[in-house]
Amino acid sequence: MTTQVTVWNEHVHEQEDEAVAEIYPEGIHGALADGLADDGVAVRTATLHDPEHGLDRSTLAETDVLVWWSHCANDDVSDAVADRVVERVQNGMGFIALHSGKNSKPFKQLMGTSCGIKYRHGGELERVWVVDPGHPITDGLDEYFEIPATEMYGEPYDVPEPDRTVFTSWFEGGEVFRSGVCYRRGRGRIFAFRPGHEAYPIFHQPEVKRVVSNAVAWATPTEGATTREGSVDPIESIEET
Amino acid sequence: MTTQVTVWNEHVHEQEDEAVAEIYPEGIHGALADGLADDGVAVRTATLHDPEHGLDRSTLAETDVLVWWSHCANDDVSDAVADRVVERVQNGMGFIALHSGKNSKPFKQLMGTSCGIKYRHGGELERVWVVDPGHPITDGLDEYFEIPATEMYGEPYDVPEPDRTVFTSWFEGGEVFRSGVCYRRGRGRIFAFRPGHEAYPIFHQPEVKRVVSNAVAWATPTEGATTREGSVDPIESIEET
Amino acid sequence: MTTQVTVWNEHVHEQEDEAVAEIYPEGIHGALADGLADDGVAVRTATLHDPEHGLDRSTLAETDVLVWWSHCANDDVSDAVADRVVERVQNGMGFIALHSGKNSKPFKQLMGTSCGIKYRHGGELERVWVVDPGHPITDGLDEYFEIPATEMYGEPYDVPEPDRTVFTSWFEGGEVFRSGVCYRRGRGRIFAFRPGHEAYPIFHQPEVKRVVSNAVAWATPTEGATTREGSVDPIESIEET
Amino acid sequence: MTTQVTVWNEHVHEQEDEAVAEIYPEGIHGALADGLADDGVAVRTATLHDPEHGLDRSTLAETDVLVWWSHCANDDVSDAVADRVVERVQNGMGFIALHSGKNSKPFKQLMGTSCGIKYRHGGELERVWVVDPGHPITDGLDEYFEIPATEMYGEPYDVPEPDRTVFTSWFEGGEVFRSGVCYRRGRGRIFAFRPGHEAYPIFHQPEVKRVVSNAVAWATPTEGATTREGSVDPIESIEET
Repeated sequence: MTTQVTVWNEHVHEQEDEAVAEIYPEGIHGALADGLADDGVAVRTATLHDPEHGLDRSTLAETDVLVWWSHCANDDVSDAVADRVVERVQNGMGFIALHSGKNSKPFKQLMGTSCGIKYRHGGELERVWVVDPGHPITDGLDEYFEIPATEMYGEPYDVPEPDRTVFTSWFEGGEVFRSGVCYRRGRGRIFAFRPGHEAYPIFHQPEVKRVVSNAVAWATPTEGATTREGSVDPIESIEET
Repeated sequence: MTTQVTVWNEHVHEQEDEAVAEIYPEGIHGALADGLADDGVAVRTATLHDPEHGLDRSTLAETDVLVWWSHCANDDVSDAVADRVVERVQNGMGFIALHSGKNSKPFKQLMGTSCGIKYRHGGELERVWVVDPGHPITDGLDEYFEIPATEMYGEPYDVPEPDRTVFTSWFEGGEVFRSGVCYRRGRGRIFAFRPGHEAYPIFHQPEVKRVVSNAVAWATPTEGATTREGSVDPIESIEET
Repeated sequence: MTTQVTVWNEHVHEQEDEAVAEIYPEGIHGALADGLADDGVAVRTATLHDPEHGLDRSTLAETDVLVWWSHCANDDVSDAVADRVVERVQNGMGFIALHSGKNSKPFKQLMGTSCGIKYRHGGELERVWVVDPGHPITDGLDEYFEIPATEMYGEPYDVPEPDRTVFTSWFEGGEVFRSGVCYRRGRGRIFAFRPGHEAYPIFHQPEVKRVVSNAVAWATPTEGATTREGSVDPIESIEET
Repeated sequence: MTTQVTVWNEHVHEQEDEAVAEIYPEGIHGALADGLADDGVAVRTATLHDPEHGLDRSTLAETDVLVWWSHCANDDVSDAVADRVVERVQNGMGFIALHSGKNSKPFKQLMGTSCGIKYRHGGELERVWVVDPGHPITDGLDEYFEIPATEMYGEPYDVPEPDRTVFTSWFEGGEVFRSGVCYRRGRGRIFAFRPGHEAYPIFHQPEVKRVVSNAVAWATPTEGATTREGSVDPIESIEET
């Protein structure tokens, strides 16, 4: 069955900042959807400005993997939609948090931590190193790739100890950062990927596109086991006490 | 410096159910505080019925480890207090969730999962096995201990993969459960311990007291490193681009 | 490309014990190979008695997933072959250790622990509970399955904290055991599955076959990233000191 | 009870290379022992050249934490001594692997991986970042410390996914490395710390001394639970089948 991907973007910078609009004329969501076009998956897009941010119950129910980009409007996402996304992840939907998507309500609720970092604007070199070359999210990559100019994120990154740390970045200004980290919550696979500041054409880079494609494949739900919750009868006979 | 422990109990069953009141005449919090009396820690208690549930900012700031028992009144804890507890854990306070404390707002927020289980009332034998005998929470225990009659909790237990699984229970009725699991969120150490249903004198058992004492010692904050968040200057010189 | 599976069995009990031979007339390896027949993978078998135990370099190089059953002859596997298997796992080959395969030289070398347990012969009921229903090794299973009569394995199981604990067993005699645990070493995925004592027709059970099939699919190597080891030149210019 | 620390050093470079001998006139083991002098622990030293490398059974039995430095002579450690160290770690002894101690026989046996890296001699700046500021091994540190000149180690570092990644290094030449990683094998706590190349006075740096002291405290065995292995009788009655 074809994997159903929803690419969500707050879509604010592109409308407010001409420089960003030039880099992403179809929006960051458009660039991301374009990057997935050859992967044999079905892609739809949604933004903050759609009714229910484009994440109504039926859309989420049909979504296998939600790719999420957000930054300045993290607080504008409604609590109801955030809760709905979290619940859908727990039930199996994959969730790919890009860049400041780490500060989104759903990601923070899934982590249970502040997700705090240090950062620096201005543009500097980032070298993204593969630290887990056996992980499928690294398929087809070389041992590192470079982002010529970007915002810096620095450690400590206040997230739970990752299930797997896939990438770690070196920054020109002297910091390091765990740029690709994997989690599971309930049945849902979660990947947070650092790159993607709006002021640079990062989602046009082939290596970054490859990581997002790989992450979508990795986060696609699998069947799993049937389970029951709540009050149950005993399987074995219980002695009267 | 003396470890400051706050024992929190919703304190509802003991006031509404005479059978529970007989088992815990000083409340479950009283029994828990009593169990910690010889540990060289300072213990205070607080309940749902206190102003701000007894968990005002200054109490939390002074608390090194919060021991939490709750069950029927999980929804009656205010969101503000729950958020405050979560934030304090992220800043280093230990958090010991007992029994249905796994369904409390703070624990669920720290986990990012539903914490769902299957369960059965009626009273049956639970055998709590040590599966991580090198863990300090097991100090002084034998390889298992038994709880003669208790509510059952059964897998799957919807929590993130634990940092360490310390105990796993065998139930007379045929189920198993990861009865002691460890996490860290931010600087705070978290331990969830299954036993403790209000209808049985479980917190009077020496092995259970020992586990709670060990968990308090384990969850006590350590100094750690100084860190900075937010915008920072580069350490290395950055090339103009 | 078709996944290449090698099923390895020491093949001693079947030749020495008529009762085992009746249960597994084609050997345990034959039953395991048969269980994989409809999975679209290519299966070969090898045993202790083959030259180099059937695990010469070229066979291992062509093997994507090695399924390993062993028990009484764990010490008879040559160190050279064990080392070769370990190295091949580190380079990406999946490794499925069945039953006392946990005591095999390769598995113990990959774990770095004693893999000690408690056990009991005689035949008793085992109920294998799914504790990670989102894991692909559980695909298509119900929340538990039963093995009517088997040898018991009991905790503590001296293995490293698993990456994922997939199954936990309940035993009639009162013990519990982490019956399905996942690891990675280098690029290789490793799954240890407890059931499979030779005296019972366990590998004829549909649920057990399903687990082995799922584990083979899960452990199949993925492409990953290109990496380099050893002495390297700097990427950035280094100041003379 | 006083923690018993054994500092082990191959003690080859200091005898063969005058420049190293000038930096470490009492040997690297002497400098390490000196750094632990104010910690209230009892320290003895041992080297490759002692009978049984100074690691006879009774010394190991009395050792709570073994601090291990090795580099060029990793292959000269006898298999018997390496096996003995591994077994003692599994039984609870802490093990601190410094610098190329990651290539020592005991560490590699405990990990089950190649422990391969990339490296570069010549001397360059290393900035060691704290990535887990809540970990006791970071007690009293600032968010990073610098080593002015050192050999570089670069990712990927072929070790199992760490239980906790405590430090990550930034190198002047453009690489990153997980410089402080924690594991447990059996009852033994293991910490691998990257810094410490013999050609630089790294073990005279206060931050490095602090890390080694903290690691010794962290790796000190705790009591744990009593356990049994091997054949056991059932606790519950088993139905005849």
